[in-house]
Amino acid sequence: MINKPSIPQGTRDFSAQTIRKRNYILNTIKTVFELYGFQPLETPAMENLETLMGKYGDEGDKLIFKILNNGLNNEKNIEAAKAGFEKVLEGKNSVDVTERALKYDLTIPFARYVAMNHTKLSFPFKRYQIQPVWRADRPQKGRYREFTQCDADVVGSYSLMNDVEFALIYDEVFNRLGLFDYELKINSRKILSALARACNATDKLVVITTAIDKLDKVSVNKVKAELSEKGLTEFQIELIEKYIAISGTNEEKVEQLINLLGKMPETKRGLEEIKKILQHTAGKNVVVDFTLARGLNYYTGIIYEAKAPAIVQMGSIGGGGRYDDLTGLFGVPDIPGVGISFGVDRIYDVLEELKLFPENLQVSTKALFFNMGETESNFAFTVMQKLRKAGVACELFHIEETKIAKQFRYAEDKKIPFAVIIGSKEIEQNYCQVKNLATGEQHVVIFENLINFFNNN
Amino acid sequence: MINKPSIPQGTRDFSAQTIRKRNYILNTIKTVFELYGFQPLETPAMENLETLMGKYGDEGDKLIFKILNNGLNNEKNIEAAKAGFEKVLEGKNSVDVTERALKYDLTIPFARYVAMNHTKLSFPFKRYQIQPVWRADRPQKGRYREFTQCDADVVGSYSLMNDVEFALIYDEVFNRLGLFDYELKINSRKILSALARACNATDKLVVITTAIDKLDKVSVNKVKAELSEKGLTEFQIELIEKYIAISGTNEEKVEQLINLLGKMPETKRGLEEIKKILQHTAGKNVVVDFTLARGLNYYTGIIYEAKAPAIVQMGSIGGGGRYDDLTGLFGVPDIPGVGISFGVDRIYDVLEELKLFPENLQVSTKALFFNMGETESNFAFTVMQKLRKAGVACELFHIEETKIAKQFRYAEDKKIPFAVIIGSKEIEQNYCQVKNLATGEQHVVIFENLINFFNNN
Repeated sequence: MINKPSIPQGTRDFSAQTIRKRNYILNTIKTVFELYGFQPLETPAMENLETLMGKYGDEGDKLIFKILNNGLNNEKNIEAAKAGFEKVLEGKNSVDVTERALKYDLTIPFARYVAMNHTKLSFPFKRYQIQPVWRADRPQKGRYREFTQCDADVVGSYSLMNDVEFALIYDEVFNRLGLFDYELKINSRKILSALARACNATDKLVVITTAIDKLDKVSVNKVKAELSEKGLTEFQIELIEKYIAISGTNEEKVEQLINLLGKMPETKRGLEEIKKILQHTAGKNVVVDFTLARGLNYYTGIIYEAKAPAIVQMGSIGGGGRYDDLTGLFGVPDIPGVGISFGVDRIYDVLEELKLFPENLQVSTKALFFNMGETESNFAFTVMQKLRKAGVACELFHIEETKIAKQFRYAEDKKIPFAVIIGSKEIEQNYCQVKNLATGEQHVVIFENLINFFNNN
Repeated sequence: MINKPSIPQGTRDFSAQTIRKRNYILNTIKTVFELYGFQPLETPAMENLETLMGKYGDEGDKLIFKILNNGLNNEKNIEAAKAGFEKVLEGKNSVDVTERALKYDLTIPFARYVAMNHTKLSFPFKRYQIQPVWRADRPQKGRYREFTQCDADVVGSYSLMNDVEFALIYDEVFNRLGLFDYELKINSRKILSALARACNATDKLVVITTAIDKLDKVSVNKVKAELSEKGLTEFQIELIEKYIAISGTNEEKVEQLINLLGKMPETKRGLEEIKKILQHTAGKNVVVDFTLARGLNYYTGIIYEAKAPAIVQMGSIGGGGRYDDLTGLFGVPDIPGVGISFGVDRIYDVLEELKLFPENLQVSTKALFFNMGETESNFAFTVMQKLRKAGVACELFHIEETKIAKQFRYAEDKKIPFAVIIGSKEIEQNYCQVKNLATGEQHVVIFENLINFFNNN
């Protein structure tokens, strides 16, 4: 009895059609990254478990896929493995059972890479990285256990021009993909610090940030309730409510912020960052949003969040920000940086919904040569080899004694635009029939002109 | 105390330079696959453990990387996990400890995919797949625990034209890579069956094949000793020795084979296959080698092995063959096929040794705009944005108050061919200095001509 084969929950096979669409997105992003001087980096799927543990909080740690050591049944390992497994059952880790794990994001492996190679790298180091990551999350619509992340970071530079360029990279990528109505929200973490200081609650920065971060999903009243629950006073909550209420154009928001928090030293520095971005992105869809917080606590300056055009219900399709210390966790301090990522799966769904994938994306094979019998096939084959030499992708239908209807269906399934038919009469008279399968139009083309025909059609 | 970060044994980080070289190889192969009508497929890194187990022999099974289930410390799992781990310590598997594993090759996941989707696929199904696989092998020079495989297969067709096309694909790829002196060895498994029958030892086919397969590494006497040890008679060994001694041109070898084994029915069918390949590959480097055996037992017809040019000591850089039944293991019988793979890591080493990587491969960023101060940088930035719009990759050196020497070094490290220098005098007079960093040549270019300059240089 053979079980029906299946794949693990939360993973996907990608067919040719899906791969072409995904590559369209990934190649667009890659091209723009390279226009801005970023270079590719690839790190292994597996990292040492100790590289990953403790970097993503308790919840994150639980979602890391760990790899069982090989050879546990080996006599010299068996006792240690037994003791190690006791630890695993207590929710701890043991190198005697699992030394390695699948990477959970691209940031920590990148930090590990920079820490390992910092004496050899040329700074500022600008890298992009497009690779799968793995998370043992409960799978649901749009959430997978194996998915592709797409990051770019500059490390080793405090210059705000890097932050400016990331805003321009978002703009360029979304425009190239036809997402003209995207929105790029920006804020500075320094402004949130200013708010905490104005509340006289610098120790509660994380509480305030976490609560405000939920405004996307919950009402202002819910946020106020959370703040009150976490011990903030009425006066503090009132100030935060005023802060949340800031609205209008970018200029109006900046003015209101100055009125509210202008005296805080962080306000001045945060606004300098924001103004620098605005100065270089005039006319782009950059929107100042002081309630933008971004969950991760390592951000210290500019933060970004990219939103899909409002007509699709999708939310964030990218995000990032500036951090002060990438590699401190690995013993190499003082490497600041800024980085962004694109949410590839969501961008895919948005382009699909808005029908923005180019139509010609799916054409790979240009012509199917029909199988009209042994002799005809051998002849067709020599014609086909000339086309391939000239860069025209084509194939011969490789099944003996097949029906014409089946060959048409095959061409249709593979989205092959042309059928080439060469029978004995055609061989004799030095031409072939070329049928455009979309229009039904039929052309008589002499063999010498076939390359030309396909280059022009 | 922070440990020095490291990566798991047998895994690699790929820097930009290495990625560009690898992509050069992979893109060449991809382009040729597509010219022949193959379409991409991607399967997950993780498969269900039961999909993989029992497919690679006992030795292979041991080298599969298994993934520890998450949440083993959960109360409802803990008892089953304990019992399961006892099994693991006996060298068995337990879904209560590990349900999933990293893929070991691309063939079994492909077979699983075809078995899962065979009612929806259009046959003959021609797919290529370029993805990493994982093996818990002892790492050594040229052998990694995470490495890229690069496969193409046609399934659902018995036609020998598929086998012919794979020989031509090897030829086209190696020629495009400059490996003109490659050698493609071919044989048919049917010829080896004929030999076993002539020896009156069809039950010893595997023994004979395995012994002959070692001729690459050991002497004829060693092979004879092995055959004798495995119980073959003197008469049988003598016949095998004559078989091994077949030599000369392809035509001479075929003639000698007919003299030796012409009466066996498998000889006729095997030679038909070989002749079909030779007929369509005249003038290419195809060499008939009746001692070619290929270890894997599922091959039934043509087998291939590609060798690097003899001046490098590398051996096999690709291989494959025809099989009768890809998906029978997954309950879907009667899907025959033929496939090949390229050894990407070895091809990389060969191209490196023969200095065959194109020189311009490493140019990504075309120009580095030097940082000459705040005002100058802001001005340079607007110039740069125009270049980027025109598709010229460039970057501004993003560190405040930096030394000129450092900027030159940065350009050199990143292999950026041009430096652009814009000082206050240049801004005033509407031009910039462009320095070719390889030749030292300096050009004065007015801003309006800069796009043209870079398109022509």
